[in-house]
Amino acid sequence: MPHIAVDNTLAGIRSLLNFRPETAEPLGELANVLLKDTVGLSPAERELIATYVSYLNDCFYCHNSHGAIACIYLEADQAVANAKAIVDAVRKDPDSAPITGKLKALLRIAGAVQKSGKNVTEEMVAAARQVGATDKDIHDTVLIAAAFCLFNRYVDGLAANTPTDLSTYEPRARQVAERGYGKHIYTTKTKV
Amino acid sequence: MPHIAVDNTLAGIRSLLNFRPETAEPLGELANVLLKDTVGLSPAERELIATYVSYLNDCFYCHNSHGAIACIYLEADQAVANAKAIVDAVRKDPDSAPITGKLKALLRIAGAVQKSGKNVTEEMVAAARQVGATDKDIHDTVLIAAAFCLFNRYVDGLAANTPTDLSTYEPRARQVAERGYGKHIYTTKTKV
Repeated sequence: MPHIAVDNTLAGIRSLLNFRPETAEPLGELANVLLKDTVGLSPAERELIATYVSYLNDCFYCHNSHGAIACIYLEADQAVANAKAIVDAVRKDPDSAPITGKLKALLRIAGAVQKSGKNVTEEMVAAARQVGATDKDIHDTVLIAAAFCLFNRYVDGLAANTPTDLSTYEPRARQVAERGYGKHIYTTKTKV
Repeated sequence: MPHIAVDNTLAGIRSLLNFRPETAEPLGELANVLLKDTVGLSPAERELIATYVSYLNDCFYCHNSHGAIACIYLEADQAVANAKAIVDAVRKDPDSAPITGKLKALLRIAGAVQKSGKNVTEEMVAAARQVGATDKDIHDTVLIAAAFCLFNRYVDGLAANTPTDLSTYEPRARQVAERGYGKHIYTTKTKV
């Protein structure tokens, strides 16, 4: 049960955003800029970073939500047939996942950020540059990882509703892939 | 040295906000809503939560920046003479600091969030309610703590410039106390 009185017809972070629209607005805008941007990293890669950090933080709601969104992008934009297997491989061991060397190097940085900003080393950054990462890619990777250290703590720190039926994540993911992280995500009722 | 090429005349997070204004805008707006709001928790109390979490995350730049802002509010709004000692006591041991029982209970929740959202217990929330915390106070405490898990990782994860001369924090803190977390904080050059 959530620690505060929220609308229980909304799942996960949606119920918290609905509780406090003043903070929902900048949080949604931050997610839109960081996760929908197509320059440098693709939306699929950005969502994979979000999924990986949320998995490391053991946030069931977030790693399933963003994993489902990553799947949709992988299937639609890159015509990947085994999207679910790719997302699962990234969750469990990015180094052996079927992804680019650049994304592997950036996921190593994201994994360091999940523990502490201080865990990012010059060597990790140099390794990412060697496989093509730009300053913007490195910036966005660190900020996506840091942002999910916020979102994961927000969801679990207030014990937001976490649907356990994995089939409910796909329709919500499709809504985000199509319409972004706007106001609609916390004003449209969805079956939890 | 920062991991990416930033304007080195800007201190700490200011150089990162300046690097990517698209994400700076929602981050500034989030900070304004969470830290300048006067309903429930005072700006001084909000900055003390930010300072405490940043101290737990060992982010020198953030705990000194927000500690300096807390000092200004404590001195101005509450005519407190020993503001620095109060801030330092909160950093090191909130339970024995000269602050209200309500703020102590909320700092216990913030300290839990710093580790993981899952560390917040029903008992901690019930204890905060018993000394007067509302749903909004609990929400804002969790979100401030979560937000500083973002800000701290952003600053240290990109190895932003961290001024070691503590006297440089006060003028920047005064600027924030007077003008908020707007665009001016990453477009106005300050002596690092």
